[in-house]
Amino acid sequence: MIFSHDFMTEENQKRIKIKEDAFAVVSKERSSGEIGYYALPSNGFTLIDEVNRFALENPFCASGAITDVALIGIGGSSLGVKGVDSLLKSKQSPVRNLHFFENTDPINIAATLATLKKESTLFIVASKSGTTIETISILKTVISHYGLDIGGVDKNRIVVITDGGSSLSQFADHHGMKQFAIPLNVGGRFSVLSAVGIVPLTLAGYDTKGLLEGADIFLNRFFNHQENHVIDKACFLFENSGTVTTNILFAYANELENMCKWYVQLWGESLGKVNVHGNTVGLTPQSLIGSVDQHSFLQLLIEGPKDKSVTFISIQDFGNDLKIPTISLKYLEKTDFVHGKTFNELINLQCDATKESLQMSGVATDKITFEAIDEASIGTMIIYYELLTSLVGAMMEINPYDQPGVELGKQILYKKFDN
Amino acid sequence: MIFSHDFMTEENQKRIKIKEDAFAVVSKERSSGEIGYYALPSNGFTLIDEVNRFALENPFCASGAITDVALIGIGGSSLGVKGVDSLLKSKQSPVRNLHFFENTDPINIAATLATLKKESTLFIVASKSGTTIETISILKTVISHYGLDIGGVDKNRIVVITDGGSSLSQFADHHGMKQFAIPLNVGGRFSVLSAVGIVPLTLAGYDTKGLLEGADIFLNRFFNHQENHVIDKACFLFENSGTVTTNILFAYANELENMCKWYVQLWGESLGKVNVHGNTVGLTPQSLIGSVDQHSFLQLLIEGPKDKSVTFISIQDFGNDLKIPTISLKYLEKTDFVHGKTFNELINLQCDATKESLQMSGVATDKITFEAIDEASIGTMIIYYELLTSLVGAMMEINPYDQPGVELGKQILYKKFDN
Repeated sequence: MIFSHDFMTEENQKRIKIKEDAFAVVSKERSSGEIGYYALPSNGFTLIDEVNRFALENPFCASGAITDVALIGIGGSSLGVKGVDSLLKSKQSPVRNLHFFENTDPINIAATLATLKKESTLFIVASKSGTTIETISILKTVISHYGLDIGGVDKNRIVVITDGGSSLSQFADHHGMKQFAIPLNVGGRFSVLSAVGIVPLTLAGYDTKGLLEGADIFLNRFFNHQENHVIDKACFLFENSGTVTTNILFAYANELENMCKWYVQLWGESLGKVNVHGNTVGLTPQSLIGSVDQHSFLQLLIEGPKDKSVTFISIQDFGNDLKIPTISLKYLEKTDFVHGKTFNELINLQCDATKESLQMSGVATDKITFEAIDEASIGTMIIYYELLTSLVGAMMEINPYDQPGVELGKQILYKKFDN
Repeated sequence: MIFSHDFMTEENQKRIKIKEDAFAVVSKERSSGEIGYYALPSNGFTLIDEVNRFALENPFCASGAITDVALIGIGGSSLGVKGVDSLLKSKQSPVRNLHFFENTDPINIAATLATLKKESTLFIVASKSGTTIETISILKTVISHYGLDIGGVDKNRIVVITDGGSSLSQFADHHGMKQFAIPLNVGGRFSVLSAVGIVPLTLAGYDTKGLLEGADIFLNRFFNHQENHVIDKACFLFENSGTVTTNILFAYANELENMCKWYVQLWGESLGKVNVHGNTVGLTPQSLIGSVDQHSFLQLLIEGPKDKSVTFISIQDFGNDLKIPTISLKYLEKTDFVHGKTFNELINLQCDATKESLQMSGVATDKITFEAIDEASIGTMIIYYELLTSLVGAMMEINPYDQPGVELGKQILYKKFDN
């Protein structure tokens, strides 16, 4: 993973203090065990072993009948998993294909049900609180649609991932279903390296050890002051948050689109808060895909208000050497200048050209480069953004780990059902 | 289509003048023929006849061999088409399946190539300028990959959509390929109801007459002052553009995700400009999908800075009566309050509950309701957003139809190829 940026970073006393304080906050969150995501990369290896044991012991998995794993979950219980899966399946065929039930859209649910067969599917129900209305409603639909006898043998077709002691955990215990716990000190949007991600991704056959190792190495380097660019970036984003209110992730690869959605949740839900002084703060995340959005959003970035910073993500080696053929078409000779290059080269040069054009237009930019699409790089990206979120949260003097604002809508929904 | 909003709309002299002036600008753009998109809904019927004739005369289409239509295009040449297709194919099986080559991502191109067979595919090359580097490079890749003899019989496997007289038009003429013209006074992002959309969508078997009729009825009603909410909304967005800088489209249906991307291009690229006074202006578009993003972005909307307005889109009747089963699961009885409702009802109540929670938090909201997923509703939504964009553009005193900011990146890219 290569990180570069063009942020102004001259030091001064105030800035040094902001960074030291934020570093102290996250260090304490980690060492005290108050916030659990810091420990996931090093603790996850025993979890992987447990998943592999489960796959050997579960009668349907062990027989080889299970070719599909359907994750029933929403928000933090699906976005990251889908993001990792989208990237990895572009490079390798999973051992078991992952499917996602993550919305109450009836057309989408019906289409996913039609895709899957009872005999070949393992259903994972993931909900941190255990009572997410979308998730449990879809679980009931799955039970009904496939006629699952959860009091009998079909209990082995369902795996539960939830907080220890939640209602869903008690439900799983009651039926003797296999369950994996999300640590109580790990919030939903910080949970992709917990059972939430490790269970489905391991069952899909991905190298989840590599994912954790990538995250663990970066995490340790960060706490050993070997990745100071993270805190420099956090400080820049914090200091400019009054004027640069939106942070764009401009990913030059279709395969990164779902990871970008994970970033949007992490950033938006963690940093949109009322701070300790009672002030409304927040940074708005948004994601774009290149080169497509050069033909969409770029005009606004170049000529519109300078209220956005842009982080580019590129993939150095897509593992695909498809070339632009050296075919000169009559009247279209003007486009021949790309002849003989690979699309891999073209898309990355487009990324660099767009970045330079933004720099020249006065937009602050930085860039994250995946050397290749692999588990270690993805793990690095995950922990990088989690650390960045915690640091900006500390600087903003907010709690980046709660989401009090979403309760109101849930209460209103409940009342709409004549309650 | 049902439109509702909670914007403050008390009239005053200044506001009346802003609205009258903007209405005069768009009326003149239309009556003078300077801007062409206003005429597309009424002029498109002859185009549909031409597409149907083409399908009868083209040897590969006429024989029934063509089951797939691949659109090679980017930005305005694909986003709207993809948006309409995503909605309609959720309700009906297309006569021919649409596929999209719209990025330089090598993995994506290779995967699309692997999906399609030469014998059963018609390739549409759409580029307004005729020299879009992504589009022409992919065209060459298609020619090479499938070994198309474009000097011979395979010229009938390619259809060109471009400006009359462009290099691509000359190329098509040279080879005797069928081509459809984009009117010169219709910009790329306003072109979905021109040949750009009508050709592929008609070949897919969709009711493009219904699409045009929906747009035409709404357009005429607007110019007859029967849809004044459009200009009221434009005025609200313009007047508050200094503080409410981001306009969210929160669509409660997975099927709307690609239409939202079309909106992002239309809004961002049209309104992010330098105005006649030399000032940088713009409104930032962003899109969300419900209920998923209740678990992501909603916290920021409720508790973060009040710099966003939110337009909800819901679908009254998904045409799917999938019910939440009346199954009470032990320990999960708390979720039983939705029993017996359809997911259709649930997702729409979630939309309403979220909207109310935003209103109570001081966020300006409005709502667009599709009675059902059908061509007329989609046509209405397209023209509604195009009119809204033109009106806000007029109020901001900018040219919403150009995109001068994107040229710099193209020049830098060209130089990167040793030119």
